[in-house]
Amino acid sequence: MRGHYNLIAGQSIERLAALSDGVFAVAMTLLVLDLHTPAASTIHGERDLLGALAPLAPRLLVYLMSFLTLGIFWVGQQTQLNQFERADRDLSWMHLTFLFLVSLMPFSTALMAEFFHYRTAMVLYWFNIFLLGIVLLVSWRLALRHGLVVEAMRAGTAAIERRIIVAQALYALGAALCVFSTSWSLGVIIVLQLNYALAPAFSRRWIP
Amino acid sequence: MRGHYNLIAGQSIERLAALSDGVFAVAMTLLVLDLHTPAASTIHGERDLLGALAPLAPRLLVYLMSFLTLGIFWVGQQTQLNQFERADRDLSWMHLTFLFLVSLMPFSTALMAEFFHYRTAMVLYWFNIFLLGIVLLVSWRLALRHGLVVEAMRAGTAAIERRIIVAQALYALGAALCVFSTSWSLGVIIVLQLNYALAPAFSRRWIP
Amino acid sequence: MRGHYNLIAGQSIERLAALSDGVFAVAMTLLVLDLHTPAASTIHGERDLLGALAPLAPRLLVYLMSFLTLGIFWVGQQTQLNQFERADRDLSWMHLTFLFLVSLMPFSTALMAEFFHYRTAMVLYWFNIFLLGIVLLVSWRLALRHGLVVEAMRAGTAAIERRIIVAQALYALGAALCVFSTSWSLGVIIVLQLNYALAPAFSRRWIP
Amino acid sequence: MRGHYNLIAGQSIERLAALSDGVFAVAMTLLVLDLHTPAASTIHGERDLLGALAPLAPRLLVYLMSFLTLGIFWVGQQTQLNQFERADRDLSWMHLTFLFLVSLMPFSTALMAEFFHYRTAMVLYWFNIFLLGIVLLVSWRLALRHGLVVEAMRAGTAAIERRIIVAQALYALGAALCVFSTSWSLGVIIVLQLNYALAPAFSRRWIP
Repeated sequence: MRGHYNLIAGQSIERLAALSDGVFAVAMTLLVLDLHTPAASTIHGERDLLGALAPLAPRLLVYLMSFLTLGIFWVGQQTQLNQFERADRDLSWMHLTFLFLVSLMPFSTALMAEFFHYRTAMVLYWFNIFLLGIVLLVSWRLALRHGLVVEAMRAGTAAIERRIIVAQALYALGAALCVFSTSWSLGVIIVLQLNYALAPAFSRRWIP
Repeated sequence: MRGHYNLIAGQSIERLAALSDGVFAVAMTLLVLDLHTPAASTIHGERDLLGALAPLAPRLLVYLMSFLTLGIFWVGQQTQLNQFERADRDLSWMHLTFLFLVSLMPFSTALMAEFFHYRTAMVLYWFNIFLLGIVLLVSWRLALRHGLVVEAMRAGTAAIERRIIVAQALYALGAALCVFSTSWSLGVIIVLQLNYALAPAFSRRWIP
Repeated sequence: MRGHYNLIAGQSIERLAALSDGVFAVAMTLLVLDLHTPAASTIHGERDLLGALAPLAPRLLVYLMSFLTLGIFWVGQQTQLNQFERADRDLSWMHLTFLFLVSLMPFSTALMAEFFHYRTAMVLYWFNIFLLGIVLLVSWRLALRHGLVVEAMRAGTAAIERRIIVAQALYALGAALCVFSTSWSLGVIIVLQLNYALAPAFSRRWIP
Repeated sequence: MRGHYNLIAGQSIERLAALSDGVFAVAMTLLVLDLHTPAASTIHGERDLLGALAPLAPRLLVYLMSFLTLGIFWVGQQTQLNQFERADRDLSWMHLTFLFLVSLMPFSTALMAEFFHYRTAMVLYWFNIFLLGIVLLVSWRLALRHGLVVEAMRAGTAAIERRIIVAQALYALGAALCVFSTSWSLGVIIVLQLNYALAPAFSRRWIP
């Protein structure tokens, strides 16, 4: 009985993608709820308004960074799902785990942004990114083992795995820097994020 | 007139799936709103931060458990919808009822997690799971009766029904244990949940 | 230039449907945020817990009713969109207007539920339903006029329009009863809602 | 290695569209959370209820305006995505940037609505619209350069670009008026918004 259910359960890549897009969309917009307009009663001139908006700037930065991180992993997951012919139940659960970690990202980012001078916050933030990477890697191997990857992509598998491993090694290195200084750690991680988001746009100019 | 409207109403499996993915995505991320970063003014060192984060651990566990339960029913509903050729108006309403119960799950889970030593909370939590199972079962029978199931799957129907009934019987047994001890009850239900989420990954290793 | 843009703008039924499913999914789960677990400090026994949960019952009913109303209009819009070959810019805006009214429904329902003995609340609630019906009717006529309806359905148009008009007439009648008694008004509207949700399931039994 | 990843990353227009619809759907319904039903204890008659609802009217207007603006950019982005054969990683990131700006729109609109007599609020609101337009323009050029636009549309590119530029010039002009009076500024921008939402419905009547 179980075997039979497993043969038909969780096969749709389309629904996995749709659920993922939903979770990413909600996670991406959740932090915007933290931006509140100032109370009208405290504003008596342009200066007051500017003054009331200034404290929102760091929140906006956190939001931007959370969006950036989620964007990187959305592109990563999407690229992977595109290489799959179909899903199965194990793969569905792997990506449900991925989505759970995705939904925690706004919290980790907010924590890190507010307490970036504390190692605890930095390590938790890195750990969230680390787990996201691990799950994507395990998902890819599982899909290969279960024969879910489209024929044409089975050869390119080393590149995909190397990419995840290199990225994770760099993140880990960045996080490890917090032994010396959490600011350095944060700086390295932000540069890495920007690199993964912006790099292709720039690299194409130089590598025709 | 009514007959005519019924012939064309609610036929799209795609839109039913899309609405379901949306509701699941929102329900899955709702509880994350309960995780708040500690107030910066109360944190003066790594110890304070760790101390402030510790009380979030149980909330995270509730969130994880809610995600797990929703994941189980997402896979279950998805598997069913995949076997349908098309929907009709009755089936659409059956799944709207299902989605209503889905959207209550984060509340039931939170209630159960906070008051797991009270039978009231345990029974309400079980009742939510029970109703979800019943609606899935009724939806399957309705689809069979209305001729909405794809040809190839009509034979496998006993397996699908048996699976829901066995799962529901086990959940009911677990819930009934709360007559003796709500902790036992909770323990059995969590083991069942983990089984439905993780079992396929492990069982494949032993049943080639 | 404008003419050219209009020829290519807003043509995708799929994206209109996806946006609609997203808005419906969020609107359907918004009211669940109003259900809060009782504060643990106030609960010292099963009785306390039951006592603390009792006041949530009316909120749950409102939520159920809001879900029901949204379900009715989701099925209605979906049925219409299924008959369209493609959209155009006017039709897209008509359905954006529809979605705006959809997103107001949880508020109207909550207002009506809390103040159902006030005509103001009852009339606002009815007005929301009324506008939803009108927009669906206008959208259908617009689609017919712009040649967006699939060939096969152009004949059945009278049935679709009649259905909306009859439903709206009954709602208006129900709402008008609030001149005498808002309770009667509410009762009639709830019966109408249940009829539109449950009727097909029952009617099939009698009309083979 | 990087080149290889870029060849396969972010190619799916469907998932970009699905994520966009999710973000738009959440952003479009977020502001409705600001509409709260009045406290029952303060209402003792129809007059009290009307009095308690009156202050919600401006919030409803803000919500309507935010919905309108988001609708305009949803139609704009959708029209563009429909002309693309496929996406690539740069285009995906361009649209992730677009979605980030979309998710800020409810905040900008609320700020502008509450402080429309302050230039700061007006300029921030305009700047959000301006960035949305710029990103759509850059996205279109990028798609053309990367050969992602469907054959048939490559000729019509001037019309699409001109449309964005004209719209942005008019918005900038409207915003610039706030040097004299923020009310004039607001008025012009609202007229422009209504024009972009309603114009096609009216213009078709006159231009057969």
